[in-house]
Amino acid sequence: MQKSSSASSLGPGGLDLSQAFFKPIQDTAPPSPTKRHTKISVIGVGNVGMAIAQTILTQDLADELALIDAKPDKLRGEMLDLQHAAAFLPRTKIVASVDYSVTAGSDLCIVTAGARQNPGESRLNLLQRNVALFSKIIPPLAKYSPDSILLIVSNPVDVLTYVSWKLSGFPSNRVIGSGTNLDSSRFRFLIADHLDVNAQDVQAYIVGEHGDSSVALWSSISIGGVPVLSFLKSQQIAYEKETLENIHKAVTESAYEVISLKGYTSWAIGYSVSNLARSLLRDQRKIHPVSVLAKGFYGIDGGDVFLSLPTQLGRGGVLGVTNIHLTDEEVQRLRESANTIFEVQSQLGL
Amino acid sequence: MQKSSSASSLGPGGLDLSQAFFKPIQDTAPPSPTKRHTKISVIGVGNVGMAIAQTILTQDLADELALIDAKPDKLRGEMLDLQHAAAFLPRTKIVASVDYSVTAGSDLCIVTAGARQNPGESRLNLLQRNVALFSKIIPPLAKYSPDSILLIVSNPVDVLTYVSWKLSGFPSNRVIGSGTNLDSSRFRFLIADHLDVNAQDVQAYIVGEHGDSSVALWSSISIGGVPVLSFLKSQQIAYEKETLENIHKAVTESAYEVISLKGYTSWAIGYSVSNLARSLLRDQRKIHPVSVLAKGFYGIDGGDVFLSLPTQLGRGGVLGVTNIHLTDEEVQRLRESANTIFEVQSQLGL
Amino acid sequence: MQKSSSASSLGPGGLDLSQAFFKPIQDTAPPSPTKRHTKISVIGVGNVGMAIAQTILTQDLADELALIDAKPDKLRGEMLDLQHAAAFLPRTKIVASVDYSVTAGSDLCIVTAGARQNPGESRLNLLQRNVALFSKIIPPLAKYSPDSILLIVSNPVDVLTYVSWKLSGFPSNRVIGSGTNLDSSRFRFLIADHLDVNAQDVQAYIVGEHGDSSVALWSSISIGGVPVLSFLKSQQIAYEKETLENIHKAVTESAYEVISLKGYTSWAIGYSVSNLARSLLRDQRKIHPVSVLAKGFYGIDGGDVFLSLPTQLGRGGVLGVTNIHLTDEEVQRLRESANTIFEVQSQLGL
Amino acid sequence: MQKSSSASSLGPGGLDLSQAFFKPIQDTAPPSPTKRHTKISVIGVGNVGMAIAQTILTQDLADELALIDAKPDKLRGEMLDLQHAAAFLPRTKIVASVDYSVTAGSDLCIVTAGARQNPGESRLNLLQRNVALFSKIIPPLAKYSPDSILLIVSNPVDVLTYVSWKLSGFPSNRVIGSGTNLDSSRFRFLIADHLDVNAQDVQAYIVGEHGDSSVALWSSISIGGVPVLSFLKSQQIAYEKETLENIHKAVTESAYEVISLKGYTSWAIGYSVSNLARSLLRDQRKIHPVSVLAKGFYGIDGGDVFLSLPTQLGRGGVLGVTNIHLTDEEVQRLRESANTIFEVQSQLGL
Repeated sequence: MQKSSSASSLGPGGLDLSQAFFKPIQDTAPPSPTKRHTKISVIGVGNVGMAIAQTILTQDLADELALIDAKPDKLRGEMLDLQHAAAFLPRTKIVASVDYSVTAGSDLCIVTAGARQNPGESRLNLLQRNVALFSKIIPPLAKYSPDSILLIVSNPVDVLTYVSWKLSGFPSNRVIGSGTNLDSSRFRFLIADHLDVNAQDVQAYIVGEHGDSSVALWSSISIGGVPVLSFLKSQQIAYEKETLENIHKAVTESAYEVISLKGYTSWAIGYSVSNLARSLLRDQRKIHPVSVLAKGFYGIDGGDVFLSLPTQLGRGGVLGVTNIHLTDEEVQRLRESANTIFEVQSQLGL
Repeated sequence: MQKSSSASSLGPGGLDLSQAFFKPIQDTAPPSPTKRHTKISVIGVGNVGMAIAQTILTQDLADELALIDAKPDKLRGEMLDLQHAAAFLPRTKIVASVDYSVTAGSDLCIVTAGARQNPGESRLNLLQRNVALFSKIIPPLAKYSPDSILLIVSNPVDVLTYVSWKLSGFPSNRVIGSGTNLDSSRFRFLIADHLDVNAQDVQAYIVGEHGDSSVALWSSISIGGVPVLSFLKSQQIAYEKETLENIHKAVTESAYEVISLKGYTSWAIGYSVSNLARSLLRDQRKIHPVSVLAKGFYGIDGGDVFLSLPTQLGRGGVLGVTNIHLTDEEVQRLRESANTIFEVQSQLGL
Repeated sequence: MQKSSSASSLGPGGLDLSQAFFKPIQDTAPPSPTKRHTKISVIGVGNVGMAIAQTILTQDLADELALIDAKPDKLRGEMLDLQHAAAFLPRTKIVASVDYSVTAGSDLCIVTAGARQNPGESRLNLLQRNVALFSKIIPPLAKYSPDSILLIVSNPVDVLTYVSWKLSGFPSNRVIGSGTNLDSSRFRFLIADHLDVNAQDVQAYIVGEHGDSSVALWSSISIGGVPVLSFLKSQQIAYEKETLENIHKAVTESAYEVISLKGYTSWAIGYSVSNLARSLLRDQRKIHPVSVLAKGFYGIDGGDVFLSLPTQLGRGGVLGVTNIHLTDEEVQRLRESANTIFEVQSQLGL
Repeated sequence: MQKSSSASSLGPGGLDLSQAFFKPIQDTAPPSPTKRHTKISVIGVGNVGMAIAQTILTQDLADELALIDAKPDKLRGEMLDLQHAAAFLPRTKIVASVDYSVTAGSDLCIVTAGARQNPGESRLNLLQRNVALFSKIIPPLAKYSPDSILLIVSNPVDVLTYVSWKLSGFPSNRVIGSGTNLDSSRFRFLIADHLDVNAQDVQAYIVGEHGDSSVALWSSISIGGVPVLSFLKSQQIAYEKETLENIHKAVTESAYEVISLKGYTSWAIGYSVSNLARSLLRDQRKIHPVSVLAKGFYGIDGGDVFLSLPTQLGRGGVLGVTNIHLTDEEVQRLRESANTIFEVQSQLGL
């Protein structure tokens, strides 16, 4: 199903109009095999996968975009719908297939596929079905693109990033989960909206598990370079812990809210993941809260566990983790986050 | 429901942190009321409306984006999902409401709302339901934004653009249908894909009714400035009329194909309409095949009818229609297109 | 000299090909006079003015760009050189004239014109010549664009921003100097370069006078949300005040260094001012260190003086000044900065 | 002189703050050596070279930009001026040196260096000095970046592209001259300005020698897909050959006009070359009139000669030449162009 096969012939018979239209110049040589372009594969063409694919296309991040899904009809429909926009976009090769060979040579593989919870199904059972699904996704991705970076978006993202790391055999710097990158963006929006400032002027992190046990780093919040907590203190403005917790709670609940209202989330995760793709592929060395192998940080030493920490990302994947100072309480919560994830993992038998 | 009302207070009680955080300078004056920003309203937040809204946001075309839909939950979910991406985008005010007052002062109103065909329902009955729907949409839009441009995307686009013109009382240069703009893009993609060239180097128009009676202008096809028909002739390459018709057929069928495969079209129409929005609002004076009041062109004189012709678009809406030469056969087909639309309109009793 | 007058006629005699090429549709009406586009005027087409104009054009910030200079040849050459790039850029109307009427209706006027120091000329004498120059620039700008924002780039920027405020009679929120916006960018680059991080992840301000008496706000430096000073402290990393001063010194000297090496600065100030233009015209509500009326801040109460403070900018110009906490020493330096500027102003007799 | 060496240390002594600020994660591996970024080198940092470098930077086309010039002060000044804008741009590594080793591994080398005509110097003598200059530029570029594409901008561009091809030993598809790409853009602007349309809707080529003997292809002009010559004919609008020649003359003279007015050209050539860089490096397969090895086209068979023809450009450099139909007169002029260039070349003794 590579590229569109629906393009009709402009001329009769076996005429190759392209060969008539362009003539080669003399004394040429084929380009060196080391000349390569940027290729991104997106696994899963549901609402999340397609919002990511479309944003990557609009922001001109790849020379080739490969889509993979188990449903060939939906897959071909999405590929054609993107291709029909060619006249409005920089030229990008868009391919799609149920066969993973179409992903060969990817620089970045973004996994959004995931099983949905059946009525009455336990969380563990769902996770085990997802692990089974990933055992069919990750090994072929690793085989066809042994040098690629894996970016996991499917939930529960921290455990599935660990699973992908194990299944791929990749070094840890090349296996990343989208983690709390979007939670942090929602946090920044809520603060910016409240103060009527530009969200890009707000620095604020949510770290730890992507989910209910995530940890808001209050001391990290600054607006236009002004640390908010010490500002409040200097202005002798009292604030109550409960208030801060309410903001964090609003962030945690906002994903549930969007899902309850429209049935799923798509646009914000699409922009969020596209933003990570830019930092990785264009070697931006920017800091993002994403899920990385956290063993050894903040006393997390019970075993291999992935959770979100402020991480510098570049062409090599994870370049390092910011040595940010956490309060004792924040460290305590982070360790609890790690333990929660670790317990789930230990039930998987990987 | 304007803006997010979910933003929690950062401080306790009635504290206005924003007032503490910023202090005014002296001797200021409020900005002149003529200082205005660019506002786009999108009516209908289904797959098409949201693909348009998201592409407009990514391409930074508006200072304010207003969403309208009859379903408040879906509407609020889509608004929040876009707002949560604030940290990744230039600042745009995003508002949403079931109440049309939220659209007040729009520069451009894009209508994507439409009734769906019920099983066994006749095409005429569906159209009458859509006319009834538009009679609730267009008058409030015209009331709240009397100077705006109306861009109609809902199908059947040509008739509904006529209906919108009648219901709004707007001059004809400010009522436009997306028409065959997307058909022409698909045409350009199929040709570019066949020749392995950039679709932006391909010029090719489909005009007339958006639908089965559309007219492909073969003589308009050029690639990188080379008119294709005369090129084939000069190269003594024979081509059969049947072959050309097959390409046109592939274009006409491609919308049906995408719908049969994924259930709807979204991405390509999103880029296509966003592209029209740019030409209109940034006064680009570019030529697009869109649905305009065609009375008086090519002998279409039976009455007021909208269909797609190559049209120059700018800040004033329709600036003019390209005086392109059509063959006798093309003119004949265009008139038949016009008659088909006119007959449908005459049944509406507007 | 509006637009290019060199375009030859495509047809003979008085033929208006444009009228033949496009035909109007029926029942149109002219656009409402309130429909307006975004217009930026740049006064002075030297290296700084043209780097600003070209960056504004590349970043598609204006629908119309007006250039003003006293030298008609240079002016027309620069206008033509920009116009010749039309095929590579979104359509922008580019006009140029020695007559200020060409700036009429500007949303933003950027002043880069300035007298150059004669050999042996005193700084005060140079300033007086610049004040004389501004008395010919600012009144016509204010007359032709009474609602515009004035953005002053010419040096000494703080005094000339004050002069422009006086000469224009504009409210203070619509008179801004580019101030230490570029100094702060150089500060951020030096820190980012040292740590191999993305400069966009670095928050750091230089405030006060644009020049040798500027004040670096050490406590404002944060990287990816980590305040650097408290990080060093928490890591028990000693740092010496002298070291910090060396960085500030490197910033202060970097403008002199570039001037000594290439004769002038252009690119960085071009990007810096284009960035301010975006925040102002697209209502970004972002915080920038720019020169504003500082009376009443940090005990500066000797009189009307402009110097750089972290300022929120939007469509209305100055929206407010960040209530950032300064150390006693920083406040002291800021007041000395203010006094230095005030003394100079008092000699001008305005 | 790689990168800025002026960045002061944030801490005392040999402290590596970066190592304290970021901590590595466990189980990492270095990125594969095949992971590579996009690198562009610009040779010559005069007005043309810097306009190109700055536009490439603004349009985010490279991960690394290397500047080369014989004057170390000017070179370092330009590098610093660009680097100081880091906070306003995506992260790009900017390096500069008088030593060609800094260009190693470039994907694209853009040569703008050239000798200036001395008073009374013959054109041939000037050319011989330029050939001598290129013999010091091209071999080290070819040595340090054996797989790169060479894009020659220096004048006389056609002869110097031939010289670069000879000196590099590169296959002909990787040696390109900017040729008439800018002339064609000026042609499109003059036509668009005349008709008040968007220049991006105008297709029009000037081919042949970049200079007085260039050839305007009248039959290639189309506006929004409407071929202008046949339009005029169908409208029974007479036009005189003299009129068309006047437009061509205006194009040819416009470069001289800009030079006589401002002393040099810079902005339009900057955008023009940046546009070519995008088509090449992002594999856009777009058609541009650029200088390529023209032997064998249109009966040009006297020897190896470079001149501009409509050429499809992509990651491999020249992909092919459009098989455009020329009138007998156009072919005749093209051959005369070729002969003119060939005669000059034969005097060089290469």
